[in-house]
Amino acid sequence: MIGDFEIKEEDLAGRIGKLETKHGKLETPVFFPVIHPIRVDIDIETLKKIGFNNFITNAYLLYKYKNNINNIHTEFNFDGVIMTDSGAYQILQYGDIEADNNSIIKFENHINPDIGVILDVPTGDTDDRQEAETSVEETIKRAKEAYKEVNDNIIWTYPIQGGKYLDLIERSASIHFQFKDKFKFVALGSPTVLLQDYDYKTVVAMIMSARKVLDRGYPLHLFGGGVPHMIPFAVALGVDSFDSASYILYARDNRYITRDRVLKLEEMDYFLCNCEVCSRYTPKDLLEMDEEERTRLLAIHNLYTIKSEINSTKQAIKEGRLFEYLQEKSRSHPALYSAFKEILMHHDILEMYDNGIKPTGKGIFLFDIDSVKRPEILRYQRNLDSYEPRSDQAVLICYNGLERPFLEDQTVRKYISSSLRESKDIFIIVPFFGVIPIYWSDSYPLAQFEMTEPIDDEVKRDMLQKLERFLSNKKYKKINVVNCDELHIESIGALSST
Amino acid sequence: MIGDFEIKEEDLAGRIGKLETKHGKLETPVFFPVIHPIRVDIDIETLKKIGFNNFITNAYLLYKYKNNINNIHTEFNFDGVIMTDSGAYQILQYGDIEADNNSIIKFENHINPDIGVILDVPTGDTDDRQEAETSVEETIKRAKEAYKEVNDNIIWTYPIQGGKYLDLIERSASIHFQFKDKFKFVALGSPTVLLQDYDYKTVVAMIMSARKVLDRGYPLHLFGGGVPHMIPFAVALGVDSFDSASYILYARDNRYITRDRVLKLEEMDYFLCNCEVCSRYTPKDLLEMDEEERTRLLAIHNLYTIKSEINSTKQAIKEGRLFEYLQEKSRSHPALYSAFKEILMHHDILEMYDNGIKPTGKGIFLFDIDSVKRPEILRYQRNLDSYEPRSDQAVLICYNGLERPFLEDQTVRKYISSSLRESKDIFIIVPFFGVIPIYWSDSYPLAQFEMTEPIDDEVKRDMLQKLERFLSNKKYKKINVVNCDELHIESIGALSST
Ligand SMILES: [Zn+2]
Ligand SMILES: [Zn+2]
Repeated sequence: MIGDFEIKEEDLAGRIGKLETKHGKLETPVFFPVIHPIRVDIDIETLKKIGFNNFITNAYLLYKYKNNINNIHTEFNFDGVIMTDSGAYQILQYGDIEADNNSIIKFENHINPDIGVILDVPTGDTDDRQEAETSVEETIKRAKEAYKEVNDNIIWTYPIQGGKYLDLIERSASIHFQFKDKFKFVALGSPTVLLQDYDYKTVVAMIMSARKVLDRGYPLHLFGGGVPHMIPFAVALGVDSFDSASYILYARDNRYITRDRVLKLEEMDYFLCNCEVCSRYTPKDLLEMDEEERTRLLAIHNLYTIKSEINSTKQAIKEGRLFEYLQEKSRSHPALYSAFKEILMHHDILEMYDNGIKPTGKGIFLFDIDSVKRPEILRYQRNLDSYEPRSDQAVLICYNGLERPFLEDQTVRKYISSSLRESKDIFIIVPFFGVIPIYWSDSYPLAQFEMTEPIDDEVKRDMLQKLERFLSNKKYKKINVVNCDELHIESIGALSST
Repeated sequence: MIGDFEIKEEDLAGRIGKLETKHGKLETPVFFPVIHPIRVDIDIETLKKIGFNNFITNAYLLYKYKNNINNIHTEFNFDGVIMTDSGAYQILQYGDIEADNNSIIKFENHINPDIGVILDVPTGDTDDRQEAETSVEETIKRAKEAYKEVNDNIIWTYPIQGGKYLDLIERSASIHFQFKDKFKFVALGSPTVLLQDYDYKTVVAMIMSARKVLDRGYPLHLFGGGVPHMIPFAVALGVDSFDSASYILYARDNRYITRDRVLKLEEMDYFLCNCEVCSRYTPKDLLEMDEEERTRLLAIHNLYTIKSEINSTKQAIKEGRLFEYLQEKSRSHPALYSAFKEILMHHDILEMYDNGIKPTGKGIFLFDIDSVKRPEILRYQRNLDSYEPRSDQAVLICYNGLERPFLEDQTVRKYISSSLRESKDIFIIVPFFGVIPIYWSDSYPLAQFEMTEPIDDEVKRDMLQKLERFLSNKKYKKINVVNCDELHIESIGALSST
């Protein structure tokens, strides 16, 4: 049935899903390039060639300038997935538009896109709470109004508003529950200005506020979330869909989107990409072209870059490496690292959604103190809390220089055989993990990790804290410490008292 | 004159240069794909199309199997830059080969490549110091022997050996001085095994040992340094040239090189790249092809990926962002972060070579405690040491929440006007930088930076240490502290004593 959303793979709070539409199953995360309904910047054939079998266009502009059209797929001669936005963006730009919610819905029912949006009232980036509240309440009112009018042939979008006011976003999102049988797509209203100002951190908080009250069974769209740099972060929080006109807006301004940044063509000596444009031309070639051709080629490159960001994010989910992908991407701009830190503040939520089963069983990559907040590490800490001592004596062997698997290390083996006689508990002290009972040490991910050396001081402190906490919980009477000379762990309270 | 090397741009110890060859100027950093002299994996036309106007092939194999050839450019029907390796790699593989240094040099003189290599004795990854020493001394002997034989039409390569023994590498490199009029290209012997074992850290130490005694006016090649992930790190240390057969070896094993890792084709659902192969096929398509075609296509993709790593590195140098590029890349594998940490250990050397003039004047990105070791920050600390107090009274204003440029912040302006009357020194306390005298605050990079918020504890500690050091050097009699409530800086010794 159209609108059905099936989740295929999960990692953190992100997922790969399939949304059933009139024009086939749409795999998410997905990016909808904004196509102007009248002016042709990039033709549909080129879009398909780049790899987009879907786009978004503006129902309000069609309504205003091409009122006589019938089916939108016929109009665009396109058999992929078409989403139509309402006039909300135009309201943000011009204050008001010449149409009301009912006319837009009626028009969308008529032109029959795959995904439609009611005419919501965007909050924008207002600092006026009263205004933000009004936009939320008015949008809810319009959803109610639309509820009776919307056509079952279209996947309808429930718009969440509230701007920077997180409690308003939460209220707006929680109301979706009442309408979810008819609104199978949910969209968070325009963080465009925040994204332009590099305020990714606030955008993270906004998404979190919406996602945590929304039913996970529905796809979540981020309106105008098109600078590709934010995409993997938003996906990790449970955003499934994006749209943006940035690719063409930047192109008109001679701007080239890279996986990390947006560069002016004039400051480039080299193209960093291998797309059909970049492998054929140099930055200088493009600068020497006439404007129209240059804009078209830059737009094509920009779309390729966005497409490969979507693919990289999906591949990371498939491999269970999304956390690591964010860690790396977060070093492309301080504002992205700020956003990543904001995400880590919500690590409990990420862990809750993270399914914990890593498909490839490959080792996890441990870099720095941020790695301590990986779902695998947090989950392990809780498992360890429930560890039942088998003895009142413990042997602690420090990680440093041991071979892996630990059970095969010479030093460890020596203590295993002697402790079997004396029935002691043996633990390996390992950075990031803290304490690992030797008999757990071959289970995932305790046996599969790669670690940066030397270990950061903060990671060392964290390890010692975990050790201290463990020892003070388990109350061993006698503790032997082996191979820990470099760590100076004698100072630990629970240890020195034994 | 052939062999002349001109440096165009510099960043850290890396540079963009131009090497004059018989076949035009070769821009560095450059990657030489290894082309098998007999078996054709990738034809020369395809190589050119991907963007390589240069390759390396094996003089020894040509000598052995195609002894009757004359000019190598005619043989390959190629007008780009050809480098010929000697049989050193074959010695590593098979223990010995059927040719001596003189015959190989004579043969190379005859076939006349652009860049030639004498038949050195590779150290490999031996753990036998005696053996390593012998390979170094024998290679030096052969360079001496070759000195009289080598043809001036060829850019000859001086091979540095020593393996993991850094002092041997240093000795081997330092001897280049005696031969530099005839050996205008220098190459560091095969860290291939170390690279395969992800021991990037040792490779960093090896490059450092060679680079610090070599004349900066000569290009440095890294033999077999072809996994692209290490490229920007090696370039940052002053490596200018690479070669490798990895692109085809991986392709034969169904392995796909990404900018971060090497993936098995079977574990991929999505291609992450936009090259002609990846934009046309899916991983599934490739798996269904016959082996030969799949290998060829994977090799093409792998070459595109290497090419774009070279371009990204060059663009980073041009923008003065190489440090940031390494920071980001170092999060792609713990072993790369270890390598980056090893590089930071040598921050004095990087700073010495770093020219300090950032071409774009763009802000620097400050992320975490590693950012404190940027050349710009280290250089600033030394400048600050020479700051002459204008008064015995100081006002310290904490960064937190101030507007930039600082001179235009309301709070700062208030203190400027009052301190003019009272002649006090005004400083802004800023993470990463420590102390900034207000009248310096609009000079680069003190006015141009982007910072992650919130600041890490380690960065905070570093800032307070810098403040403490500054105050204990400058010995102000009276210090006012403004806007620093959150920092608890009262505890600083020099402060609490005033
Ligand atoms: Zn491109
Ligand atoms: Zn490719």
